[in-house]
Amino acid sequence: MVNQKNEQTGVNMPYGYNGKILHVNLSESTWEVETPSEAWYRTYMGGSAFASYYLLKYLAPETDPLSADNVLVFACSVVCGAPISGFNRYTLAAKSPLTGGFGESEAGGYWAPELKFAGFDAVVIRGRAPKPVYLWIQEGAVEIRDAASVWGMDNWETLEHLRQELGDKRIRVASIGPAGEQLVPFACVQNDLEHFNGRTGMGAVMGSKNLKAVAVRGRQKMEMADPDAVKEIAQWHSKRVKSHPPNVGLTKFGTPGLVEGVNGAGFLPTRNFKTGVFEGAQKLAAPTYHDTIFHSTGTCWACTVRCKRRVELADGPYPLDKRFGGPEYEALAALGSMLAVDDLPAVARGNQLCNLLGMDVISVGGVIAFAMECYEKGILTAEDTGGRSLAFGDAAAMLWLIEEIAHRRGIGEILAKGVKRAAETIGKGADRYAFHIKGNELAFHDGRGKTGMALGFALSATGADHIETPHDVAFQGEGVSKLFPLGLLDPVDPLETDDAKVRFFFLGQKAWGINNLLGLCNFCSVPIHAMTFPRLVAAVSAITGWETSLFEILQGAERSLVMARVFNNREGFTPKDDRLIRRWHEEMPSGPLQGRRITPETLEAAKALFYEMSGWDAQGRPKRAKLVELNLGWLADAA
Amino acid sequence: MVNQKNEQTGVNMPYGYNGKILHVNLSESTWEVETPSEAWYRTYMGGSAFASYYLLKYLAPETDPLSADNVLVFACSVVCGAPISGFNRYTLAAKSPLTGGFGESEAGGYWAPELKFAGFDAVVIRGRAPKPVYLWIQEGAVEIRDAASVWGMDNWETLEHLRQELGDKRIRVASIGPAGEQLVPFACVQNDLEHFNGRTGMGAVMGSKNLKAVAVRGRQKMEMADPDAVKEIAQWHSKRVKSHPPNVGLTKFGTPGLVEGVNGAGFLPTRNFKTGVFEGAQKLAAPTYHDTIFHSTGTCWACTVRCKRRVELADGPYPLDKRFGGPEYEALAALGSMLAVDDLPAVARGNQLCNLLGMDVISVGGVIAFAMECYEKGILTAEDTGGRSLAFGDAAAMLWLIEEIAHRRGIGEILAKGVKRAAETIGKGADRYAFHIKGNELAFHDGRGKTGMALGFALSATGADHIETPHDVAFQGEGVSKLFPLGLLDPVDPLETDDAKVRFFFLGQKAWGINNLLGLCNFCSVPIHAMTFPRLVAAVSAITGWETSLFEILQGAERSLVMARVFNNREGFTPKDDRLIRRWHEEMPSGPLQGRRITPETLEAAKALFYEMSGWDAQGRPKRAKLVELNLGWLADAA
Repeated sequence: MVNQKNEQTGVNMPYGYNGKILHVNLSESTWEVETPSEAWYRTYMGGSAFASYYLLKYLAPETDPLSADNVLVFACSVVCGAPISGFNRYTLAAKSPLTGGFGESEAGGYWAPELKFAGFDAVVIRGRAPKPVYLWIQEGAVEIRDAASVWGMDNWETLEHLRQELGDKRIRVASIGPAGEQLVPFACVQNDLEHFNGRTGMGAVMGSKNLKAVAVRGRQKMEMADPDAVKEIAQWHSKRVKSHPPNVGLTKFGTPGLVEGVNGAGFLPTRNFKTGVFEGAQKLAAPTYHDTIFHSTGTCWACTVRCKRRVELADGPYPLDKRFGGPEYEALAALGSMLAVDDLPAVARGNQLCNLLGMDVISVGGVIAFAMECYEKGILTAEDTGGRSLAFGDAAAMLWLIEEIAHRRGIGEILAKGVKRAAETIGKGADRYAFHIKGNELAFHDGRGKTGMALGFALSATGADHIETPHDVAFQGEGVSKLFPLGLLDPVDPLETDDAKVRFFFLGQKAWGINNLLGLCNFCSVPIHAMTFPRLVAAVSAITGWETSLFEILQGAERSLVMARVFNNREGFTPKDDRLIRRWHEEMPSGPLQGRRITPETLEAAKALFYEMSGWDAQGRPKRAKLVELNLGWLADAA
Repeated sequence: MVNQKNEQTGVNMPYGYNGKILHVNLSESTWEVETPSEAWYRTYMGGSAFASYYLLKYLAPETDPLSADNVLVFACSVVCGAPISGFNRYTLAAKSPLTGGFGESEAGGYWAPELKFAGFDAVVIRGRAPKPVYLWIQEGAVEIRDAASVWGMDNWETLEHLRQELGDKRIRVASIGPAGEQLVPFACVQNDLEHFNGRTGMGAVMGSKNLKAVAVRGRQKMEMADPDAVKEIAQWHSKRVKSHPPNVGLTKFGTPGLVEGVNGAGFLPTRNFKTGVFEGAQKLAAPTYHDTIFHSTGTCWACTVRCKRRVELADGPYPLDKRFGGPEYEALAALGSMLAVDDLPAVARGNQLCNLLGMDVISVGGVIAFAMECYEKGILTAEDTGGRSLAFGDAAAMLWLIEEIAHRRGIGEILAKGVKRAAETIGKGADRYAFHIKGNELAFHDGRGKTGMALGFALSATGADHIETPHDVAFQGEGVSKLFPLGLLDPVDPLETDDAKVRFFFLGQKAWGINNLLGLCNFCSVPIHAMTFPRLVAAVSAITGWETSLFEILQGAERSLVMARVFNNREGFTPKDDRLIRRWHEEMPSGPLQGRRITPETLEAAKALFYEMSGWDAQGRPKRAKLVELNLGWLADAA
């Protein structure tokens, strides 16, 4: 890592980052290295902001997301790779083929730290390779290599093949499966088959660029301003992870541990969002999971939480391979409760198929649930499916559809468009059962039971994002006091959509946004999990040498959110796109939340208040003053 | 200090504060103690926010500031009294008789810590005593005592008399002089004759309530959450004060050390703002000061900066008493350059007269400069003055006018109204020479040379406030990096009023606003002086036990600024009141800034951008969304 004298501060920089952005032009098979200023790094910080910066800079409005002109950004942050639990994620962003707007998804694992150690903070990819290629990044350089031998392979085969071809078992590979090659608009990108840039179809963008994989191997040391302080925070954090209840739960059961509680509270999306309780939840929940399919735990770079589950099953109709990943909470809901499938091995097998084929299991679950409800309502019939029943609860149909969708075969060709466009193709009122926000299928949190999450779904630039959205139900006990540094001194009612909730969401969205900005894992960070805001600020300072503040970091998070918003405005998004789904406007029919709903009027009032609070105009466009405030004056014309 | 179990955090509270607000009703000679919740303390924090909270709560719009219905608030903060340099100030606030809007002024010294140690965090005074009284506060109780024996006395006599009457030399006394009794609308409140709540006429409000003084004596210990951490920060700070250049200068020369630099840069207000260079500046500057009148240094509670100067002079026409205070920078400009008086002993004597009589030397200087220019222009003549010349440069006239104004005699009766109303009384175009903002005479910083300060003057709720206003010329060298935690990564041009400057002002106003919120001295705090933001946050946490953040503290500062704004809006203030003075719209006629001006169009554009950035409507009123954001929803109807 090159140290460059910073004239203003007299400090040797950079700490924490490389100061190098790799730009690759696949059309021309060329690459170059950009070395932005320290001020640029401090302004944008990483992840979602690095990505939106390049998207806004290089991508003209109305570009076809699957054209050579789309811009694909792999972005680490100025703190990614530090040896603290959760400091390991990267953003993958491009214009989304699923939503037509800002596409973004984060993944953990080991890939992002490996890229940092290979000498780059981000990779910006433009153009389209004339034939399949993959990138091989090491020692501050990149090779654009022929991918003919791996094209068509699933993600596991690809990983194994590249390890052999490059002669290094320790490479880290972000790759797409057949679904990405087939341009399925919810195709994902994965690394190690347990870490996924799942949402908004980044796999299709890679496919459209004929880019099968990005393999990285890093041997550089990460320079940090105060390694002793970083070590002290890491140790404090690891110790706290062992006692902080939400983390203890994650270590013990992973995200599958959430199934029981979510179902018990009545907001586990079931049968295509018809209700929030699933009679078969217990069969999918953590105790069953651990007694039947659990093999071992997995984790990410430097992380002591170890939330990943690996599964194995030799017998029965649904064999499971421990190398292909175990289902998380979202997968259990996607292929379980949403489809009324209570056969855990089948759900786990469906999840492994998604991993191998390279599809976002959330969208896959949403799409299949849509298909099953259409079948139930007679909108889709045996005629459409080649004679196959698509009833809710049919595990075999679920597994069959996953393959049909990934390969765009038969009914799969229609469903592979995502629910919004599939419903348009099907017609016959199918759109009544096509649940999406901005074209993106919803993550599995019924907003009638957590209205802050609902606002996040409505207002997220990527549509129905559950990562950068404050979780209002988590603020019990210590959770409440962890928000005090935001000036949020009182718990909010999970079921209300009042002024207090909008304020909670306004501040909370930025607080959660820090995670995508800095590439932090929600499960290690503030607000819910073991980290605290003061320690987080101290960590960023110790890594980068910047005397930073929560204010500056939240400003960075807001900058990132606003840039994504401007991107969508530029693409023609309007307040009508900040929406919820019909079913959440209707009363929850059963379970603990029976009778709860969010009326359209309530949503519109909350949106109006949020726009005004955010410094956006009535059309949901950040005003010039907001852009200037965030040092984004250069975007004022685009807004 | 009572520790009360806080149920949410499990922490014993309160640390840092008493949890007790003293309410005194002078009309009824009654008092009671309020014990607000921890959430209230954490929301409002202290000083300016405590004060505006009670003003907004208890004071009906359009109340006569000199009526019994005005509310007078002495407010310390949750950290005031901690043994760190500069943590010692209190806010004094009421509806201003000078501006008709939000009146507020801070003073250092020992009074505020003494009040804390006496058991109260603030004193809220309502009503009017039937005859002169003073308050005697100790051991968590108050006596309302007869002040007949001190009514009419100057501030020194009052202090001495109360020490004897109460039999305690260690009492601390905030008192008014004859000018306050006479209801001069720029009468001040002082303690120890070197610490002043100077601006906006709080002395007149005390006078109108027949309240001569508030004497306090405290023997309680201040409980702090982490006394060792506080001690460590205090020691670090004291050490840094000895090496940080702006503090070294203050320790060596006090604020008089600024005269040379300000004149050299060309923005020392001279001859009623005609220009920014004064040919006699050297005769008022620190070297002369120290060679001729300097006696010793003074300081405030726990402060190692020791910026106060005491002066003494036995010989000559202008004897100086070391007990009556030495002139600061503002006094040297007020009675020196503004009046073209270069006789330092005369200026120092004028300052001591103001201290004894109890008048804000800034307004006094502004008023006399106005009178001298009216005299120069023939608007005031010998006929108006009883035959006395009021020429610029006439030191004796200055001293004479100070007494005439304080006692409201002759021409003094007119001038005692302040320049705005004096000009209305005089007529004949006198308003062309009456320089004020919102009725408040300007502090002595020519905005043509520091446009951020100019914006602060225009937009401050109190009119022409130089305390809660960012100093854009200070950001050279280390000063720049100290603003980084605000996301201000680039120095601003002191002479420009562009987008970058508005952004600087928007963020900087909150940063400087922290000082009035927490009762911190600008000379010890961030941004210019020895403190840093991370250490300040750590100090607040160590004192209060709150895991706070710069974000939360800046939110508090904004809350305070917005409450003051709402107060003014309620009183009928409009964007027209957010103004500068005519001379700053005209070209600086001489000196290094010759030709510089701020056009009205530039100001209006900056105001519009600032309003929008602030979440205010085009009429400069904070929108409902801003109030909700700041947890001030209860004010939404008043805004």
